[in-house]
Amino acid sequence: MQLKDMTRQELSAFLDEEIKKYNEFKSRGLTLNMARGKPCDEQLRLSYGMLDCLTGEDSLNDLDGTDTRNYGGLDGIKSAKKLFADIFDVSENEVIVFGNSSLNIMYDTLVKAMLFGTGNGAKPWKDCGKIKWLCPVPGYDRHFLITEKLGFEMINVPCDENGPDMDIVERLVAEDSSIKGIWCVPMYSNPTGITYSDEVVKRMAAMKTAADDFRIFWDNAYCIHHLSDNHDTLLNLLEEAKKCGNEDRVYMFASTSKVTFAGGGIAAMSASEKNIEYIKSLITVQTIGYDKINQLRHVRFFKDFDGLTEHMKKHAELLAPRFNAVCDALDSEIKPLGIGKWVRPNGGYFVSFDAMEGCAKKIVQLCKEAGVELTGAGATFPYGKDPKDSNIRIAPSFPPIEELRLAAEVFCIAVKIASAQKLLEA
Amino acid sequence: MQLKDMTRQELSAFLDEEIKKYNEFKSRGLTLNMARGKPCDEQLRLSYGMLDCLTGEDSLNDLDGTDTRNYGGLDGIKSAKKLFADIFDVSENEVIVFGNSSLNIMYDTLVKAMLFGTGNGAKPWKDCGKIKWLCPVPGYDRHFLITEKLGFEMINVPCDENGPDMDIVERLVAEDSSIKGIWCVPMYSNPTGITYSDEVVKRMAAMKTAADDFRIFWDNAYCIHHLSDNHDTLLNLLEEAKKCGNEDRVYMFASTSKVTFAGGGIAAMSASEKNIEYIKSLITVQTIGYDKINQLRHVRFFKDFDGLTEHMKKHAELLAPRFNAVCDALDSEIKPLGIGKWVRPNGGYFVSFDAMEGCAKKIVQLCKEAGVELTGAGATFPYGKDPKDSNIRIAPSFPPIEELRLAAEVFCIAVKIASAQKLLEA
Repeated sequence: MQLKDMTRQELSAFLDEEIKKYNEFKSRGLTLNMARGKPCDEQLRLSYGMLDCLTGEDSLNDLDGTDTRNYGGLDGIKSAKKLFADIFDVSENEVIVFGNSSLNIMYDTLVKAMLFGTGNGAKPWKDCGKIKWLCPVPGYDRHFLITEKLGFEMINVPCDENGPDMDIVERLVAEDSSIKGIWCVPMYSNPTGITYSDEVVKRMAAMKTAADDFRIFWDNAYCIHHLSDNHDTLLNLLEEAKKCGNEDRVYMFASTSKVTFAGGGIAAMSASEKNIEYIKSLITVQTIGYDKINQLRHVRFFKDFDGLTEHMKKHAELLAPRFNAVCDALDSEIKPLGIGKWVRPNGGYFVSFDAMEGCAKKIVQLCKEAGVELTGAGATFPYGKDPKDSNIRIAPSFPPIEELRLAAEVFCIAVKIASAQKLLEA
Repeated sequence: MQLKDMTRQELSAFLDEEIKKYNEFKSRGLTLNMARGKPCDEQLRLSYGMLDCLTGEDSLNDLDGTDTRNYGGLDGIKSAKKLFADIFDVSENEVIVFGNSSLNIMYDTLVKAMLFGTGNGAKPWKDCGKIKWLCPVPGYDRHFLITEKLGFEMINVPCDENGPDMDIVERLVAEDSSIKGIWCVPMYSNPTGITYSDEVVKRMAAMKTAADDFRIFWDNAYCIHHLSDNHDTLLNLLEEAKKCGNEDRVYMFASTSKVTFAGGGIAAMSASEKNIEYIKSLITVQTIGYDKINQLRHVRFFKDFDGLTEHMKKHAELLAPRFNAVCDALDSEIKPLGIGKWVRPNGGYFVSFDAMEGCAKKIVQLCKEAGVELTGAGATFPYGKDPKDSNIRIAPSFPPIEELRLAAEVFCIAVKIASAQKLLEA
C-alpha cells in the first residue's frame, strides 16, 4: 500500500512503528558514512602494484626517449597521452595529460577563460560583464562551487533519465550570449547515475549558441567506471561536435582518481587540436610540466587500455554489491510505499534519491542523529539550494558492506518517518 | 694586459688569434648545452631509492592517521608540512604543501590575487586598473613571463652582490600604490648566484608600501642547494616581517624539483597564518587535494630535515666540480683581460656573466654557431630586453664535466672575440 493512500490513522500507526525502529537504531550509537564518493580500502589495494612498479633498475624514459626524471614535456608523456586518447576515444593530438586532479584542470580552464579568453581572439570573460552558466540539476557540488566563486550566475536545468532537458538548454543558449557554458557529467552522472542519451549528446554538439565562445565542460569522471559488463554507452561529444563544425566548444575531462589512488592519480583533458594548442600556449606560462614520473608509473602499471579495462572490472566486483545493498533496500522498503524515486545505476559512484518534496533536509537530519552521515541536502544544487528540498546523494562506495546495509536500513526508516510526517502535516 | 689597454694593432692581432681558435672549435661540429638549469643524470640517480620506497607492505597512513591513498587533506600531509616547515624555518601552521611545481603555485597565487584579491577585503587586482611589478634584474625568465602574461607593467630594479638596490625599491613602493609586488630569488639568485644580505631582507620586511596589499614573492628555490659546507646564509623574511607587523606581505616558495626529480617533486608555500587560512579557503574551490602519496614518498625517503641535508651534500659533490670548471675558465681566460664580471656562487644553479655592454647577443650567437647552446641573451630581463645587452646566464649542472670544460673554453673565446670586435668598432 502506498503511503499517500493511507488514512491518517494508518499513517499515524505507521509513523509510530517507524519511530520505534528509529529509536532502537539511535540507541546503538552508530557512526556510519554514506557522504563521500571515496574508494574503499579494498579498491585502493588494487593499485598497490603501481606503488613500486618503477625502480632504479628500469629505464625511466618514455617511448620517445623523454626522460621522465627531468624537466621538459609540457603536455604529458607520449604513452600517457596514448592511454587517455583511448579513454576519451580521440587522437593523441587532442589530449593533454596534467597532474593529479581533473577538478583542478576544470578550475584552471575557467580561470584562463576569465583572464585570457578562450582563444581565437575572444575577449577575456572578466571583461564580458555578467557571465551565466547552465547547471543541470541535481549535479556535482564541486562544479557549482567553482562557478559560484567566479561570480557566474548559475541557472538550473532539469534532467531526466536521458540527461539535461535539451529543449530548455537549446532555448537558453540560443537567446542569451551571456551564457558561456554548461557543466555536464555525461556518464553515470553525479549524482543521478544516468548516462546522456545519443540524442542529448547530438543536440549538445549541434545547438546554436548566442555566445561564440560557449563551452561544454564534459566531466567524464566515470567513463570507465562500469558496474558490470552490461554497461551504458555514451556518444563521443568531440566527434559529434566535429560533424557540426562545433568542436571548439568541447572540453572533456577524465582522471584516474577513482582508478588508482584518489589524489595520487593523473588527470587529462581532451579538446580540438586548435583548443589544445591554445591551452598549451597558456600552460607554458604556468608551469614547466606536470609529474611525468607518475604518468609513467600509471602507464607501466596498466600497460594499455585493455589492462585498464581489466583493472576496472576488479573495481566493479567490489562496488556492485555495495550498490546492490543500497538499491535492494530502497526497492524492498521504499518502492512499495511510493515515497521516493531513484535509478539503479550501471556505473559511477552515487545513487540519487528523490524524496517527497520538502523531505530531504529532514531525512538527512534524522540520519545524522542516528549516526549515519549523508551529503548535506541541497548540496547537489547551485548555491546549495534544492528548490524542492527533495534530492539526496547516497555514496555507497566507501563503507564496509555490513555497515552499508545498516546505514541503508536507517536511511529507509528516516525516509519513511519524514514522508509520513509530511503527509500528516498536509 | 687588459683588452681596453691594448693598441688597435694589438687588439687586431689578439682578435685574429682568437678567431683562429674559434674556427678550429667550429670545425669540430660540437653539440654542447649550457642553457638549462637541469639536474644531471648522476644527480637524478641520487633519488632512485625514492621510486620504490613505498610498497603495499607499508602503512600508507601519515603520522596523524591520514590515509594518503584516498581523498582528504587539502593543505598537505602533516609530515610533509613538518619537512617544509624545517626548510622554510617556520611553523607547520605557516605551510601548505602542494603538487609538483612551485612555479605553478606562484602563478596560481597571482591569479587568485587577480580574481579574488589577497584577502582581508582587498579588491581583486583585475579591478585595480594598471598593476605594476618590481623585477630585480637580471632575474628568472619564468617569473617575468607570468607577470607579462597577466599584463602587469614590469619595472627593472638593479641588483648588486647584496640583492636589489633597496633605495630604489623603497622609493618606488612608497610612492606608487599600483606597484603590488616584487619577484625575488633571495638565495643563490637566478641567475646572479648572490644571496640577499641581512640588510636587504630587513629593509624588505620593514619598508612602507603605498599598496596595502603589496606582496613579496620570495622564490627560495635554492635555499638548501649549497655547493659546500662553507655556504651563504639568508635571514628569514617571514620572521623579519613579523617584527614589523608586515608578515602578510610575504609569500615564500620552495620545492624539491632540484632535490629529487625535476617535475616529480613536491612544492610548498609559506606565509602568515592569516594568509594561509585565506589561501586554503580559495584552494578548496580549486581541488580536493594534492598528491599525498608523493608527499609521503618524499618524507619516507628523507626521514627528516637532517636526511634532506645529507642528500643535498651529495648533490653538491656532483655540482661543485661543474661550477669550478666554468668559473676556473673565466678566472684564467677572462679576468686578466677585464672584459666581464661574474660571481663564483656558493650554491644554486647558475653563473651569471656580465659581458662588456653590447656584447651578450654576439657572444651567444658565436657560441651557437660553434655548437654551444646558451640561454638566449636578454632572457634574464623582463620582456626579454637587456638594456645593456650584457648579461648571459650560464647553466653548468647538466652536461658531463668534459663537455662542460669544452663548452666553457668555447664561451671564453666567444667573449674575447666579441669584446675585441666591440673595442675595435669604438
